[in-house]
Amino acid sequence: MEKHEKKPESPFRPFGDYRWEEVPLLAYKEEGAAPFKAITRQVLFANPELHCEMRYFEVAPGGYSTLERHQHTHGVMILRGQADVLLGNEVRPVKTFDLVHIPPMTWHQFRTTGTEPMGFLCMVNALRDKPQLPTEDELKALKSNPAIAAFLG
Amino acid sequence: MEKHEKKPESPFRPFGDYRWEEVPLLAYKEEGAAPFKAITRQVLFANPELHCEMRYFEVAPGGYSTLERHQHTHGVMILRGQADVLLGNEVRPVKTFDLVHIPPMTWHQFRTTGTEPMGFLCMVNALRDKPQLPTEDELKALKSNPAIAAFLG
Repeated sequence: MEKHEKKPESPFRPFGDYRWEEVPLLAYKEEGAAPFKAITRQVLFANPELHCEMRYFEVAPGGYSTLERHQHTHGVMILRGQADVLLGNEVRPVKTFDLVHIPPMTWHQFRTTGTEPMGFLCMVNALRDKPQLPTEDELKALKSNPAIAAFLG
Repeated sequence: MEKHEKKPESPFRPFGDYRWEEVPLLAYKEEGAAPFKAITRQVLFANPELHCEMRYFEVAPGGYSTLERHQHTHGVMILRGQADVLLGNEVRPVKTFDLVHIPPMTWHQFRTTGTEPMGFLCMVNALRDKPQLPTEDELKALKSNPAIAAFLG
């Protein structure tokens, strides 16, 4: 009988069309876990020796990430396209290679703008708390800011 | 007397021409600490709440990083240009958005190829050991591989 050995993972993962060799394309989150639209996830680095992970999220035109907050922070770099970002009490446009730091317990959401997909790198601690979703009251408070009301639609 | 207050650091750091707003351009390493050529460093994320840092290194045409190894690992993404990478006992070409994982205690060096600068993101643990340089004997052993001898020139 043939012995099936796991092919050792290569340290080189070449890029092509916003996919990386040997990196699976995953769902953004568990279906129904939280509101989001048209996002995929690829885990680029998640190594036991590294204390953070690097993920790549891609949002189709018209798509958005979950509006959420959590204790852990994100280091984000836009890799392609453009978006509006809600961060705390502010809405800002971002484009390719811009950086965004998401501080602890700060509401945040990405919404694509334009007709191209928007992709971003997200560096995050390997050990982290679960995201929280806004309550009705928290959503109402957010929407008292006209810019955020317009952003959330 | 006027009170000088530190301007709060913005969570948004817009990109322009491979610089980021409020991110200083630094020397790659202390002068004379190790052999390298034509590199700059920008620290994109180094936050007490994040267990890793994200740095951007840019190597001018003809430049190279230090040949070194260490216990800590690197998660690297090429952001612009192309290079040859020495990793362990292998030399491989890499180009924009390719990924390279540098495992523990593995000799590595980046050398630009082509006429454009080569820039890369490097994710690394905030707490890490110091790099080691090769001894004469280790360098000799590396150069017993003709591809590596050619790479090191």
